[in-house]
Amino acid sequence: MTLEPIGTIHTPYTNLEQMPIQPKGAADVIGTLVVYDTYKEGLKDLDGFSHVYILYHFHKAMRSELLVTPFMDTEVRGVFATRSPLRPSHIGMSVTQIISVENNIVTLKGIDVLDGTPLLDIKPYIPQFDAVTNVKTGWMKKNDAEVAEASSDSRFI
Amino acid sequence: MTLEPIGTIHTPYTNLEQMPIQPKGAADVIGTLVVYDTYKEGLKDLDGFSHVYILYHFHKAMRSELLVTPFMDTEVRGVFATRSPLRPSHIGMSVTQIISVENNIVTLKGIDVLDGTPLLDIKPYIPQFDAVTNVKTGWMKKNDAEVAEASSDSRFI
Repeated sequence: MTLEPIGTIHTPYTNLEQMPIQPKGAADVIGTLVVYDTYKEGLKDLDGFSHVYILYHFHKAMRSELLVTPFMDTEVRGVFATRSPLRPSHIGMSVTQIISVENNIVTLKGIDVLDGTPLLDIKPYIPQFDAVTNVKTGWMKKNDAEVAEASSDSRFI
Repeated sequence: MTLEPIGTIHTPYTNLEQMPIQPKGAADVIGTLVVYDTYKEGLKDLDGFSHVYILYHFHKAMRSELLVTPFMDTEVRGVFATRSPLRPSHIGMSVTQIISVENNIVTLKGIDVLDGTPLLDIKPYIPQFDAVTNVKTGWMKKNDAEVAEASSDSRFI
């Protein structure tokens, strides 16, 4: 299957080293989705939602690894039990908050991707579909504050 | 960008017409992810998690539309404000519950995709990254019970 970007993501993060590892670590960071004109009609009604999933291409991940050491852990884990960019699909996903939708620009708060990242899809967060309870999180034992403090590094290039 | 499936999803749903529209409508339905042997090492540690996002290819969606009428609505909406298969990426995403992980087989509960769907990625659900509050859901006004009763049809082929 071949996949075309629908736009580009712009953020203040120009290198991996200072980037938060998830939106929770970038709670106040503003970024924009610049959707190509061809697709902008598809943004109709998005402004009624408060949160979206964005799917994007981990374009700096040049290889795949089946075993990785996640940022929040010291042990080697199966890549599908992590959110590492080195996954075979090289597709990243983050939940972020919508600030505004104007013409072909979606402004988001709490964004954790590199500037220039190719945008693949936007999906509304709908609790009737997406909210889960009674969650078990395996190796991931950090709390929100620890996640917010964690930064990326170059291990996943 | 080109994308290779990492496996195949097996479910009881062999045609779109009887399929629930989201995992909430398939709460007791058991399905399996059959991950190709090449990738099975990446499943290590996944059994510690209770829920996963699965990304998959809407392989029966033969076209893209920027404006669609969602199953849960009667008005035309921008495709990025819906979860329609007719999105340009043709990538679907569902949150489901893990029952077991054995060798290359992940058994899931609450699965809402067609039998034979190509699996693109598995990501653990991690509330520290994924849980959101104060959500606004735009056009989507249905409650869990209404979602659970809704079935798919052939509009998105």
